[in-house]
Amino acid sequence: MEPILIENVLLNEKSTNILIENSMITGIGTQIPMPVNAIRIDGRGKAAFPSFANMHTHAAMTLLKGLGSDLPLQQWLNDSIWPAEKHLDGEAVYWGAKLACLEMIKSGTTLFNDMYFHLPNAAKAVAEMGIRGILGINVFGDGDELTDDSFRQLRDQVEGASDLLKISIAPHSVYTVSEKGLVHCAEMSHRYGTIYQIHMSETEKEVQDCLATHNCRPYELLERTGVLELTEGRLVGAHSLYLSREEIALMARHHVTATHNPASNLKLGSGYRFLYSELREAGVNVTLGTDGSASSNNLDMIEAARLMSYLQKGVRQDPTVLPTTELMKVVSENGFKAAGINAGRIETGKVADLILVDLENLAFVPMHDTLSGLFYAAHGDAVDTVICNGRIVMHNRHVEGEEEIRTQAFQHARKLRP
Amino acid sequence: MEPILIENVLLNEKSTNILIENSMITGIGTQIPMPVNAIRIDGRGKAAFPSFANMHTHAAMTLLKGLGSDLPLQQWLNDSIWPAEKHLDGEAVYWGAKLACLEMIKSGTTLFNDMYFHLPNAAKAVAEMGIRGILGINVFGDGDELTDDSFRQLRDQVEGASDLLKISIAPHSVYTVSEKGLVHCAEMSHRYGTIYQIHMSETEKEVQDCLATHNCRPYELLERTGVLELTEGRLVGAHSLYLSREEIALMARHHVTATHNPASNLKLGSGYRFLYSELREAGVNVTLGTDGSASSNNLDMIEAARLMSYLQKGVRQDPTVLPTTELMKVVSENGFKAAGINAGRIETGKVADLILVDLENLAFVPMHDTLSGLFYAAHGDAVDTVICNGRIVMHNRHVEGEEEIRTQAFQHARKLRP
Repeated sequence: MEPILIENVLLNEKSTNILIENSMITGIGTQIPMPVNAIRIDGRGKAAFPSFANMHTHAAMTLLKGLGSDLPLQQWLNDSIWPAEKHLDGEAVYWGAKLACLEMIKSGTTLFNDMYFHLPNAAKAVAEMGIRGILGINVFGDGDELTDDSFRQLRDQVEGASDLLKISIAPHSVYTVSEKGLVHCAEMSHRYGTIYQIHMSETEKEVQDCLATHNCRPYELLERTGVLELTEGRLVGAHSLYLSREEIALMARHHVTATHNPASNLKLGSGYRFLYSELREAGVNVTLGTDGSASSNNLDMIEAARLMSYLQKGVRQDPTVLPTTELMKVVSENGFKAAGINAGRIETGKVADLILVDLENLAFVPMHDTLSGLFYAAHGDAVDTVICNGRIVMHNRHVEGEEEIRTQAFQHARKLRP
Repeated sequence: MEPILIENVLLNEKSTNILIENSMITGIGTQIPMPVNAIRIDGRGKAAFPSFANMHTHAAMTLLKGLGSDLPLQQWLNDSIWPAEKHLDGEAVYWGAKLACLEMIKSGTTLFNDMYFHLPNAAKAVAEMGIRGILGINVFGDGDELTDDSFRQLRDQVEGASDLLKISIAPHSVYTVSEKGLVHCAEMSHRYGTIYQIHMSETEKEVQDCLATHNCRPYELLERTGVLELTEGRLVGAHSLYLSREEIALMARHHVTATHNPASNLKLGSGYRFLYSELREAGVNVTLGTDGSASSNNLDMIEAARLMSYLQKGVRQDPTVLPTTELMKVVSENGFKAAGINAGRIETGKVADLILVDLENLAFVPMHDTLSGLFYAAHGDAVDTVICNGRIVMHNRHVEGEEEIRTQAFQHARKLRP
């Protein structure tokens, strides 16, 4: 792989050069070596930031976006989503995942944590798009169909498709998976060292039902059944919206990663009071996600970041909560950390996942503070260049194969309408 | 003015033509007359929507955007905003207003309701940009400097600059203007038939202070002093966030327009519980604004609309609140109504303020529901063409003079840094 040299780019408000070799950032400065064989990127009028980690989504659901807006949750699922999903075959998941990757690249995301079906098809799509995916095997009920054989087969297909792909085990939730299923998944996650992704405490009802059924709250159920111990440091709890103080302590003790999905929580009417400060103070690794585009209709992590920051400030009536430097950590470094990737900062020795943002975008005109421009004024369309694992996946907003993805996505989406 | 014919454009999910003559929409359909002298716009791959009305902003403050992010309110004002504003002369306001108009046009807004200083300079800027502005004379204290002479002089300068400009009277708030000043402004507004724009009940503290000082809540103060009667049907209460049931009844009785500014309220930590359903049920005209870019850092009304909708759904835990058709009314028709302009719908006989949105934008790929794509997935950059009062102000995202505005805005903004 040829080195990449980004010249005269704004980094932390100063103009500098960034050298990338063999997927790593190997030099930053105005006096660094400039290998003659390097691909040169003109960084003038651009600012460099770490790329984003979207830590909870259902990529292929982007084909369903806009179906059944503004309906009550159950009616939306019964009349719009589930009938459409019946027609989602492997081919549709492939094009849905391609479209989602395209949208993620165009808004600066290089890692996403997914949970859906037809993993080999999704894996092929993500591999072709050149970004990182953690693809979760969705499990319901007792999870009997997840055996060592079926897992290894899927793992080989997914991880064989690209070095940037990882498989994970994703029991859907405590209300759709039995205790037996939750534990079975945890044992598999422990045996194979995978991430254990699960929807946790997304709605008040879910917590009340858990109390009624199991006589404890969702994270307490995971502790009681030994799941938290088996998945130590590898559990990603999507949503984690309704938490008791005791649950936050449990999460911290077992190194759980919490993934906030503010747009989805608001749009579906789940809630708005994510306990960011409490989680952070307890030492929980807080990350951010968009959820699938069927529930909140885009994959723009800048929008998700702004929404998270605004909610924290507005609901707590305190404009100092979650300042931009901390927000960048939530949106990038914390997500990469959960995935075991040493990225999320632009520093020598870090893995080269980064973006260049176009300072011509009106969000940065005028420009008193670049990070404030990014998180409080810009949208994903300000992203000009995306580098993932030391490889350019977008430059000048051009992504290979975009036209075909649009055409195919339209065709496959049309077949899904109820 | 030449007629405009938009051909084969998507309107309410069907392909049609739209004819605009003398600032009005005069025909919609596949069989309408096609004047030979018409400017033809190819509407294929585009959807038509009413343009947006940003009913509360401080346009020129866009020069300050990003100064002092994440600070406590008073420190932000004392250390960042007020020192910078001291350097804001007429020339800076002119370029700031140009930049704001550019940003508004590029995100589909053709009417804005402003409150700031150096009105003649702002008026010149808005007139050159070709959109509608209501420019409010900011009043503090007793408002002694606002006399019939000074008003008429300003009015002639502002309204003389363009047919699309209106002057208004804008006492800052009940905590910065005396009772005498509030009444004086109301009498002037009554005498000259202008809008009376005022910041109302933006923070809890403001309401508590009003109760302590005046022994009543802010809207009650406006009633007791006769302001509501004098400004009947012309009062625009920006924010209107903390309201009692009695105040909502007063607002309805006196045909007050409330302008919600969700981004500003969240980012400054003012609050999040705007009483949309209660106001709507009482019959209050609810509109939307971005506030100035110093407080919430862009002027994108699509973003503001999404935020409003998400907050209503999330805080009330009900995804059916404020569906997209109703949201469109808040974002467009209700604002134009407050300004006395018969726009906000694409129908024969309406004033031609409308936008064409690019369906190639990924927000509309795939596209099950165009309005859902607009409000739940797109950002302002999806807007391709903007027509204001029957005149094209942007086409293919090109706005006259953009480069000079960027250059000048940068230069003037640099002078403002503390």
